[in-house]
This record gives sequence, structure tokens and C-alpha cells, in this order.
Amino acid sequence: MKSLILSRRDVDFMVYEWLNAEQLCEMPRYADHSRDTFDATLDLCEQMATHHFATHNKKNDANEPWFDGETVHMIPEVKAALDLFAQAGLVAAGQDYEMGGMQLPTLVEKACFAWFLAANVGTAAYPFLTIGNANLLRAYGTPEQINTWVLPMMQGRFFGTMCLSEPQAGSSLADIKTRAEPQPDGSYRVFGNKMWISGGEHSLSENIVHLVLAKIPGSPPGVKGISLFIVPRQLLDEQGNSAEHNDVVLAGLNHKMGYRGTTNTLLNFGEGKFKPNGQAGAVAWLVGEPHKGLSYMFHMMNEARIGVGLGAAALGYTGYLHSFDYACERKQGRLPSNKDPLSVPVALIDHADIKRMLLAQKAYVEGGLALNLYCARLIDEERNALDEELDRITGLLDILTPIAKSWPSQWCLEANNLAIQVHGGYGYTRDYNVEQFYRDNRLNPIHEGTHGIQAIDLLGRKVVINHGFNFEQLMSTILQTSNAATADVNLSEYASMLDAAIYRLADVTRQLHNSGHQELTLANASVYLEAFGHIVVAWIWLEQMLIANGRDDDFYRGKMQAGKYFFIWELPKTTPWLDLLATLDDTCLTMQASWFSS
Amino acid sequence: MKSLILSRRDVDFMVYEWLNAEQLCEMPRYADHSRDTFDATLDLCEQMATHHFATHNKKNDANEPWFDGETVHMIPEVKAALDLFAQAGLVAAGQDYEMGGMQLPTLVEKACFAWFLAANVGTAAYPFLTIGNANLLRAYGTPEQINTWVLPMMQGRFFGTMCLSEPQAGSSLADIKTRAEPQPDGSYRVFGNKMWISGGEHSLSENIVHLVLAKIPGSPPGVKGISLFIVPRQLLDEQGNSAEHNDVVLAGLNHKMGYRGTTNTLLNFGEGKFKPNGQAGAVAWLVGEPHKGLSYMFHMMNEARIGVGLGAAALGYTGYLHSFDYACERKQGRLPSNKDPLSVPVALIDHADIKRMLLAQKAYVEGGLALNLYCARLIDEERNALDEELDRITGLLDILTPIAKSWPSQWCLEANNLAIQVHGGYGYTRDYNVEQFYRDNRLNPIHEGTHGIQAIDLLGRKVVINHGFNFEQLMSTILQTSNAATADVNLSEYASMLDAAIYRLADVTRQLHNSGHQELTLANASVYLEAFGHIVVAWIWLEQMLIANGRDDDFYRGKMQAGKYFFIWELPKTTPWLDLLATLDDTCLTMQASWFSS
Repeated sequence: MKSLILSRRDVDFMVYEWLNAEQLCEMPRYADHSRDTFDATLDLCEQMATHHFATHNKKNDANEPWFDGETVHMIPEVKAALDLFAQAGLVAAGQDYEMGGMQLPTLVEKACFAWFLAANVGTAAYPFLTIGNANLLRAYGTPEQINTWVLPMMQGRFFGTMCLSEPQAGSSLADIKTRAEPQPDGSYRVFGNKMWISGGEHSLSENIVHLVLAKIPGSPPGVKGISLFIVPRQLLDEQGNSAEHNDVVLAGLNHKMGYRGTTNTLLNFGEGKFKPNGQAGAVAWLVGEPHKGLSYMFHMMNEARIGVGLGAAALGYTGYLHSFDYACERKQGRLPSNKDPLSVPVALIDHADIKRMLLAQKAYVEGGLALNLYCARLIDEERNALDEELDRITGLLDILTPIAKSWPSQWCLEANNLAIQVHGGYGYTRDYNVEQFYRDNRLNPIHEGTHGIQAIDLLGRKVVINHGFNFEQLMSTILQTSNAATADVNLSEYASMLDAAIYRLADVTRQLHNSGHQELTLANASVYLEAFGHIVVAWIWLEQMLIANGRDDDFYRGKMQAGKYFFIWELPKTTPWLDLLATLDDTCLTMQASWFSS
Repeated sequence: MKSLILSRRDVDFMVYEWLNAEQLCEMPRYADHSRDTFDATLDLCEQMATHHFATHNKKNDANEPWFDGETVHMIPEVKAALDLFAQAGLVAAGQDYEMGGMQLPTLVEKACFAWFLAANVGTAAYPFLTIGNANLLRAYGTPEQINTWVLPMMQGRFFGTMCLSEPQAGSSLADIKTRAEPQPDGSYRVFGNKMWISGGEHSLSENIVHLVLAKIPGSPPGVKGISLFIVPRQLLDEQGNSAEHNDVVLAGLNHKMGYRGTTNTLLNFGEGKFKPNGQAGAVAWLVGEPHKGLSYMFHMMNEARIGVGLGAAALGYTGYLHSFDYACERKQGRLPSNKDPLSVPVALIDHADIKRMLLAQKAYVEGGLALNLYCARLIDEERNALDEELDRITGLLDILTPIAKSWPSQWCLEANNLAIQVHGGYGYTRDYNVEQFYRDNRLNPIHEGTHGIQAIDLLGRKVVINHGFNFEQLMSTILQTSNAATADVNLSEYASMLDAAIYRLADVTRQLHNSGHQELTLANASVYLEAFGHIVVAWIWLEQMLIANGRDDDFYRGKMQAGKYFFIWELPKTTPWLDLLATLDDTCLTMQASWFSS
């Protein structure tokens, strides 16, 4: 039976034919690996996602976790699936052997994880949050901290969270109020409230390791005074087992439009319900140096944001496959040229407008997945790079990250919108799957930095730092692709379009930064992000077309047609966006609050 | 307190300042009316929507109607609100005096109804479906049928539905299978299944009058063999009271993503659970002549589609007001030029990107509402027109209807998307209102003819019939507006842009119809619909700017800025769409089903 989660054929195309995962095995870290071990892991993930995650996706949505005032309850399938995931060693898939890991390349790890994100994002979020937490601790924690907290997370005994936002401080972390008071023994006590904490409370694991941003009294104001702390839900006894409850209390669950399987919480730290060692405050340990918490967090943010982009692409992908499947089965109407009402109705897929909606979805979801897997490969390259290569790779990854996060969040959500439309009235009902994907995916333009935050990060920081070094790396990488395509009669037209677009983007970037008026430069940053994203994804499509071109097979013909669709239908949308940016239009900036009201 | 449902100031602007409702009082039908009676009705609707509809909108969503196998249950607030609505005479607001109506102009009636659609679309749908049903019967029923069925609907005793779709026949009504067998007494017995019937079952009224499309055995195949029948849920006794249950049975409720307050049903007719007079089949009466059912239905379709567009605009509007309100209250972050973390955070509304999202919403929702009110006024003009004017008005209404339906369904849904984004994480929770608006509004691109159906209706029929007469009427109307604006220094730039766009649209329309290949002409009809829609709404904005221009008041400044936004940010999007159409691109048409799969 065909999978409606992801296309394994396409994953193989991206991982092996395009991104050449086997080449990564030449790097010492991945030397034990081969296509065989990669295939075995991909097989395992496809099977597990199909038989243990997708199977309770709807049930999880319809029966969201509930809090009785003492305990959070959820359907038992969640823990069963996560126990299998951990037992298979997947939490540690990308980790060092010494951590019990597989040392799987990030490229393959992300391709594996995409199956779970597409099958059941609500359940899959728990281990992925845990992995993010573990990666941060592994990078900045002491050996003892790693031993105490990371190892149990790798075994699936402990889960992890990231506690950044507060009720009054969402996008603006400079304004967090949670404070960490130093104790004579070198530990801290944390007091404050943290909002939007995914996986903040549940009974899925023995313990929950919260990584908490907080301010030590006397710290500098703003982001330069933020430190990072380990605050476990349960304190450990001398054997390292979870024991006394720390002073971390669930204040409430957030009830969301989608992503319902993942508990999302308001947590109170240090309100005194529990008093470890008879004293108020949540016991905490500093990670790394004081006041560097946000920079630590941001070092891991690339990976977290790529995770969001990957999840958005995965949700788009499964919606695309569901709507394709429906369009093949459902008979409705006749082609415009057929006026005989007695003739047999055709399948939806035979209607041009349905093909348009499926082709758009294909272009969006395969473009989004490919972009995120490309970034995953950059993480592998970065980890193994020689010094002279490192700046280029890091620069490329830095500038691509806001696109990898935001582009699929916007366009793979649009794919989910189209998947509903292909289904007609049925797609709007909860008897079918696509409306849930649409609700789930709507979170992605918000969390891990909103669309607007990504836009300011890209235009205000990523394209300007080091005198535009990152932009130069991206431009030369894109031009390499278009050069390779120029020679081919089937691709030269698209190569020219891509060249024109990237040169125009470079011009507009300069114009924006020469305005001499920072508020105006950044005022339309969201449009810049969108234009930039479409040009990047056109490049990603040309990369795929270079592989597919001239191959006599339905799969490659589909790749070529989706690439053609992207160049002919999507890339030209950037022209009015770039024209608008070039004028430094101030319509939005000069709008006054009093003109909205009346 | 400011209303978050609609802006009364803006409704007054559209109804009085722009569309000059008072002028309608010169028509004999509306001669008893004045601004006073209009204002009184608008006041009443605003109050009732605020205090009796908005108040249970969330509760209705969270507690959707449920079916215990015998009866459909819903929260009691729904019936209470609808009883008030009927008692106030609002079901009959637009009807003749002799029907107990107010003879309110359609323009004012629709402006009144927009309050209910914005406040609680789930509850409001019941009377609006009833009104659509009544209008159809009034136009084509016999005096006896009108007396028997329409009068009780006007009094709120009976509710009505429209039963078109079947499980196997959604967009393709040619394929309906429901059959109506003639009986010796001139009545019929109906057998079949009807799908997606909104308001198909409930206990809100004494009776439900279903208007059912069915085929009489021996009818011509396809749409030319469809007849229209009255099939009441309850048969009437000799006093006209609801008595014996007709053979119409609820087979199940559809569980939707949004619009949850409105029961949406699968109905079985004539399956024999009830046997009126001991005989199987649902008792039915033919409306008008046999085989003309679909043409009757389509005569009322303009109004039904304008109703959908109005609902989409209303949902967009309330989301806009909610997000504006939130943006004024919520403090978050600082402007880019302010590097002092100790300074007080600004309100969201002070950020340029938030203003962009609010201005886009304003442009979409005020544009969508204005377009639908313009169409409502055309209905009034059509009803009262002299013969020599009638063709022009009817032509204009016919060509604008697919836009009035589809444009708000697309762009006011996008407004709801932006309203969530303005709220950040809070907007994604069910504690706030905007996520429900987004879910509710997602139905509108589907029902009463999908986006794709509207597109084919526009490009394949409306712009070509009578040698392009409708298009000429629209073009000359638009050119009148741009001519009026050309003289003004503030508006001449926009007038030129609009002229260029409408001439280009005319060219592209010709190119599409000169292709000599019907499938190719229609293949990209959805893009045509979108380009056409943006040009129409630019015109609607220029109309509003002509009134607002030069007025020294915040309200008018806001109108000018939103209009400017539409011309500078939105209208240019049509250029790549029209360029694409002009090439008669066949990328979607030539895509093969086998290239999607792999």
C-alpha cells in the first residue's frame, strides 16, 4: 500500500541522489555508516511512523491532554509510541557513540524524523524537544551535567523542554522577569512564570528537564543579563533517580487550535507549592557562564528553526499525499469539452484546476522538505569542515535558517489549504485528515520566532553581518547551480530567471540598507523574507531539476514539471514584491493607530 | 465600549456616504423608508448581534450540536437568539409588506445581516438559509405554496433548507440520483440521499421546509432533467400546523472544522422509516415546471453567493477588529532604533510589521464588505430598474457575483490568518476568538460553488455571454470611477493604475478566448478569477477614496491609507498573474497523474 505520510521514493531522491548522503560516510564521524545503515534506519522510521504514530494522530487531536488539577492525562497510545521510539535508540540517533548514540548524519536523522512529524506531530514533538534540550546541554553543560541529565534523556527516561517565553515576554525576551537567586552551595533558586512551554507537564517520562532562561539579580538589563539554568521537575536522589518534586508547578494547559497532542503549558517556578529541602524556589543549576544564556540558546536556534521548517514541510507533504489519493479515487464531473451528461464522470485528478492545486502542493512541500534537508546536510558539513571551509558553511547555514523556518511555515500551510480544497466539503470535515494538518501547521509561523521576527533577523542581521559575507556565500552557491544549468537546453531558461532574480535581490538589498533610515529599511522586512524565500526555493528546485533532467521515468518527469511550475507560476511573484521593496514604501510605517479606529 | 463585531462608523460610511441608501427611498418600493428607519434597524441589529449572538459564539463552537440517534441537541442560547431575531421581524426584513415584511432595501438588509454573520455565523446561518429558501419559493411557487410555506417561515415558525448535493454529486449536480415519483393526486414521492444540508435537522422550529432537487423518472439526462420540490420535514394538518412526520430522516451530522454551530447533515428521503399515509417515500410538491429546477436555483444563486461573500467579509472584519484591539493593548518589544532595554515596551501597534498586518486586514475586509454591499445595491436597482437600465444592472451583477463570493472567501480568510499572527501564540489558543474565525471562514471557499467553480463560471460563461456584454458594463463602470479620480492630484496615480489593469484584463480575456482550445482556455481559470478579483476590489477602493479624499478626519485618513495600501501592495500582484494567463501556460493541464505518484 502506498504511504500517505511521505514518499519514500522522494526521500531517497533527496537524501541519496541529490544530497549524496553516502559521501558523508567519508567523514570520520560517519565512517561506520553506509547506505545500508541509512536505509535500515529510514525503513525502521517509516514502519514505526506508519504503525505506531499515524495510527493515533486523529485520536490524539480529538482527545487532547487534560488536567484534573493534579495530573495531566492523555491517551495511552502516546506513551506506547514514545517508548518504542526510545527503545529503538532514536532519541540518540544523532548523538556520539559515547552517549549511546548512532552518530547518524544530521541529513539522515532529519529525513528519518520527517516521517514522525508527518505521521503525528503532536506525539513526535516530545522527543524532538528533548533532543533539542540535550544538544544544548551537550554543547554548554559540564561533563557532570551531561552525565546527570543528558544520558537519561538519551535513554528516554527523562524528557526535556525549553523555557524561554513568559506571559509578558513572548518575542521580546529582553523583558523576561524570571529570576535566579544564587545559593551558598553554588546552585540557584528560580522564581517566575514561563508561558508556551511545550511538553512542560505530562506523565510520559520519569522526569522533565526544563532549560530555563532567567536573570540573576544584579545582571545587566535586557538580553545581556539572561542566564540559562537546568531546572528538573523532580530532584534526583543519590542514585540519580527522580525523587522529591521540585518547585515547578503546572498553572494550566493552553488549549490550541491544533498541535493538540502536545501539552503546552504555563509553568510556575518557585511559587512554594513544593519546598525542596524546606525552602521556597525551584532548585536550579547554571549552564555555562552567567549572562550568556541567550547566546547559548541562539547557537542551537538554527537547528530548532530547521526543525520547525521540517515539521511544516512534513505536514504539508502528508496533506499533499492525502489529497492526491483522494483526487485519484473521487469521481466528479466531466471535462469542459464533454457535453454528454450520460458519460461516466472523470476522477478529480483529470480536472486542470485540481492538477493545479496538486502541482502547487508538490512544488511547495517538496521544495520545503528539500530546503530543510539541504540545511541538515550543511550542519553535517559544518561539524566536519576544515577551517578554511567553515566560514562559508556557517555563513550559508546562518542566512538560510530564517528561510528554512519561515518558507515552509507559510507555503506548506498553503499546501494544506489546497489539500482541503481538493477534498471539497469532505476536506472541511473531521472525518478526513486534511483539516487537522491545516490546524496543526498553523502553529509553525508563530513558534521559534514569528514570521516577522525571522524577517527582521534576515534583513536586519543575516544579510548585513560581516559586510554581507553570508549573502555573498549564498549568491555564489546559487550562481554555481545556475551556471551548471545554463548549458542544458531544458534548463537554461530557468537558469536565466534565477540569475536575474538573485542579482535583483542583491540590488534591492543594497537599496534597502542605503536608505539611511533604519525603521524604513526594516518596515517591509516581511516582504523581503518572502521574496528571498521564493528565490531560494527556486534555486532548490533547479538543483533537483539538474538531477531529474532527461531521465525517462514518471518520477523524474514529475520533478521536472513541479520545478517548471515553480519557475513559471511562483518565481514571477517576486517581481512586484521586489519592486515594492525598492521604493522603500512607507505606507505601513506611516499608518497611525488612530486611523484604524474610528 | 467599541464594538469588535463590525465598525458602525464604517457601515454608515458604506451605506450612506458611498452607496447613498437614502436615494433608494425615491424608489416606490422603499418610499416609506428614510435614514431614520434604516438607522433604527441597524441599531437593533447591532444591539441584538452584540447581546444575543456574539455572547454564545464560542460556546456554540465548543459545544457543537450532537445527535443521540433520535434528536439533535444544541445549546439553548441558539433558539433563544433566533426567537428574538424572528420576533423582531428580521426574517422578513426584505420581504413585501403583504408577506409581513419591512420592504427594507437589500443594501440595508445585508448591512444589518452582516452584524449577525460577524457575531455568530453558526447561529445566524439558520435564518439566512430560511430567507434564501423563501425568496426562491416566492419567485417560483404558487400562491398557495407561498401561503402554506413562506408565511410560516417569515414568522419564524418554519425554517428552510436547500438540498442540492448528494454524496456522489457535489459540484457536479448533473449526476444527482434523487428521484421524484409522480402520484395520482399531483404530488410526488421523493427517494434519495442529500449531503451537506445545512440546517437539515434541529429542534429550533416547528417544521423544516426542504427545497430538494430531484429527477422525475423519464426526465432528460443531466442538468436539464432536474426539478425542484418542496419536501417538509412534517406534513401539515388541515389547520396548517405541523403534524405527521414526512419520510425525511437524519442519517448523520457532519463534524466540521468550523461553522460548528450550524448543523450540517446527510438526509435520507424515502427510506421508509416514516410512511405518510401508509406509503413509502417523502411527500413532495413540484415547484414551477418540471425540469427547470436548476435554472430556478440559479436565479437565486446570485443572492446566495453574495451571502457567502458577505459572511466571509464579516468574519474577516470581526477578526480585524479583535486583532487591532489586541495590538493596542499588548505591549511587546521596542522599535529598531531604540537600543535601551530599560525603556518601556511599546504596544504591538507601534511595530511596522504589525501595522502591515492590520492594514492588509483593513484593506481586505473593508474591500470585501464594500464589494458585497455594492452588489446588494445592484439587487435593489435591478428590482426597481426601468427596462432600458435592466440589462446593464443585471449584467454587472452577474459578472460581479463570482468575485463577490470568491474574493472575500480567499482574502478575508487571509485576514483571519493575519489576525492570528498579530496575536502571536495567544491567537493560536481557543482562549482568544480569532482562531475560530479562521476555522469558520475556511468553509467559504467551498460552499455555494467552490473557488474553481466560480472561476469557470467567470471565465467560461460570465465574461463571454452576449458577446462580452457583461464585461463591457463592468469596464465602463470602472472607467467612470477612474475618470472621476483622474482629475484629483491625490488619486490620479491610482486612476492610471486601475485603467492600465482593466485594459490589460480585457486584452488577456480576449487572448484566452482566442486560444481555440477550450480546455487550455479554462485550465488556469482560478488565476483569472484572482486577477479579476483584485482589479475589481482596487476599483471598489478607488470608489471609497473618492469619498474620503481630502477629508480632515482620522476615519477618512484611514480609508485613504488602506486604499493606498491596496493600490501599492495588492494591485501589482496581478501583473505576474496576467502575464502567466497571457501565455496560455499549460504546465498544470499537461501534468499527468502518474507523475505525481512514484
